[in-house]
Amino acid sequence: MKAKFITIEGCDGSGKSTQKRLLLEYLKSRNIEAVDTREPGGTPEAEKIRELILDTSLIKMSGVTELLLYTASRVEHVQGLILPSLRAGKYVICDRFIDSTLAYQGYARGLGVDFIKTIFELTTPDCWPDATIFLDVPPQIAFMRKGGRDRDDRMENETLEFHQKVYQGFLNLKEKYKDRIISIDASGAKEQTSELIIKALIDRGVF
Amino acid sequence: MKAKFITIEGCDGSGKSTQKRLLLEYLKSRNIEAVDTREPGGTPEAEKIRELILDTSLIKMSGVTELLLYTASRVEHVQGLILPSLRAGKYVICDRFIDSTLAYQGYARGLGVDFIKTIFELTTPDCWPDATIFLDVPPQIAFMRKGGRDRDDRMENETLEFHQKVYQGFLNLKEKYKDRIISIDASGAKEQTSELIIKALIDRGVF
Repeated sequence: MKAKFITIEGCDGSGKSTQKRLLLEYLKSRNIEAVDTREPGGTPEAEKIRELILDTSLIKMSGVTELLLYTASRVEHVQGLILPSLRAGKYVICDRFIDSTLAYQGYARGLGVDFIKTIFELTTPDCWPDATIFLDVPPQIAFMRKGGRDRDDRMENETLEFHQKVYQGFLNLKEKYKDRIISIDASGAKEQTSELIIKALIDRGVF
Repeated sequence: MKAKFITIEGCDGSGKSTQKRLLLEYLKSRNIEAVDTREPGGTPEAEKIRELILDTSLIKMSGVTELLLYTASRVEHVQGLILPSLRAGKYVICDRFIDSTLAYQGYARGLGVDFIKTIFELTTPDCWPDATIFLDVPPQIAFMRKGGRDRDDRMENETLEFHQKVYQGFLNLKEKYKDRIISIDASGAKEQTSELIIKALIDRGVF
């Protein structure tokens, strides 16, 4: 079976890294080789760009600049890790990818989905995920769950109103990309959410 | 008279910063207010991205990543300095702009001129310079003139073959954009070159 590219999306505090870990453990138990990665970041070059993106001293940068930095980091990640891993027959499990860009920059920053899609397809052609898990938790609950925001992180310092726009963006995306995005109720216990994810991926024939 | 956006282009060592200074002195003597700037950089945000671009530890980054970082820096520069200055009636004199991106990334890195133009027009609409001075000095002469390369600068560490491709790129651009790009023989003394530039700009009605 062809190795698949699976992304995990949702608001800050929705449990993405926990669910990524549980999914990787499941794949390991089934002897499916998988690569664990995240955006922004994933390679040394991409991590350097990530540092710049999250730098609070750059708070004034425009939405287009932010988009271009995320895209630069993504190009390194896709060319340096994601595509080589898939070609080598390994699954790739990635915490955040294009849907975060669409939700944060496209919807919440107001740059528009078509603009983001154009830049994405120009710079990383043929790189849509095979399946995307959207962890559906509203931002007010997600924030409480993670015990408040990290004040050194430019994104987490945004207002609740901003994070609600991001959440609404994800809801729009799951309608727009019904065949790719699987919405999972992530309000329950983490083991329960993990089971929902694995069942949904099996039902869709992802593994 | 409407304030004009003038860019100065050419290979490393072709004398761009000297000619920019002499042009600014001339404008001052004519009481034309002008802003002195350069790419990559020009605003604190853009300078931060510039540092990342020229970081030699990032030597492995792809041509597309490099393009996106230059573009991110440019968006900050255009929105934060160039457009506000022009709107305030000030001339803007900029050392390197889109033609450097077209020559370095479009021609020498092989990304193609159409690809670069698309990204430029998507991210900084309506921002072509009113006039561009191309300082025509072949790279082997330009390098000798500046006394060798700076080994801490990722771009200057490229091979002479690379810089020859850049030079050929500029020659192609001056044919493609005849109405905008003014080619100046910059092999003579700096005062002589400056006179050629000022005469050419007056002849074109730039001031």
